[in-house]
Amino acid sequence: MDWQATRPGETSAPLPERQDAHFVFIGRIRTPFATRDQCPRQGDSENGPECRVEIDAPWHAALMGIAAFAYLDLLYWMHEARRDLVTQTPRGAEPLGTFALRSPVRPNPIALSRVRLLRVEEGALIVRGLDCLDGTPLLDVKPNRCAQSPAQEHRHAAS
Amino acid sequence: MDWQATRPGETSAPLPERQDAHFVFIGRIRTPFATRDQCPRQGDSENGPECRVEIDAPWHAALMGIAAFAYLDLLYWMHEARRDLVTQTPRGAEPLGTFALRSPVRPNPIALSRVRLLRVEEGALIVRGLDCLDGTPLLDVKPNRCAQSPAQEHRHAAS
Repeated sequence: MDWQATRPGETSAPLPERQDAHFVFIGRIRTPFATRDQCPRQGDSENGPECRVEIDAPWHAALMGIAAFAYLDLLYWMHEARRDLVTQTPRGAEPLGTFALRSPVRPNPIALSRVRLLRVEEGALIVRGLDCLDGTPLLDVKPNRCAQSPAQEHRHAAS
Repeated sequence: MDWQATRPGETSAPLPERQDAHFVFIGRIRTPFATRDQCPRQGDSENGPECRVEIDAPWHAALMGIAAFAYLDLLYWMHEARRDLVTQTPRGAEPLGTFALRSPVRPNPIALSRVRLLRVEEGALIVRGLDCLDGTPLLDVKPNRCAQSPAQEHRHAAS
């Protein structure tokens, strides 16, 4: 794939030198997709393959109560994506601003997927709906808000 | 607020010393909420107050085409949140794992809000649906996937 090439209509800006904050990877995502070409264009939370979200040991207890949710929001780091494109030209389309696209190429390549939670194992979540590379670093797991009933929303809201 | 206190049932783990990745703030969020007590429990994308999402100059062109979307996903950094709680006890509730909550307190305090896009101004988005502090640093803006029609999905998908 011509991941590093620039197509007509694409513009870039160097990432600022400063580092405003840092994060720690809390686990890894295991998918059947070993290369970018194997990744589907979009995850399918109903019919996609089962994937395994492995949580590192210090945060195993942070899964307590998560089995009550049918859908989760996963945030993960697109560790192979370039970060400097300001406008992009999707294949067969007109140029668009990076923030009008869900491309992995963005100044902070944080991906967001809504997944269906199938079951919880020891320190791991089995889900459907991912389209990322095997080994992708995990940043966060949250209950999906849209999928919560009002009662759950009240019960599980932040204090 | 007793932000730093630990309630019954809460457990913590020190954040690892390592820094796995870094990000840059791409702008700031302007809301009417100057203190945590003023922040609503949850944003309201239909009836909440208008908020202004200010994009820094290097990424102004990254907004090109965004006016076509009615709903956006905003990712932002909860810069005042502690990062060490593994289980938490919401007010009046039982303890739950951090990943079963949408509390700002989490190892990577990245917040996710689905907002309604009202209009685009020069280098700024006017939206409804935020519940965060005025001045909150912005990490990313994406079209909301659920809100896209299949035609838009095709047109704006990542290449």
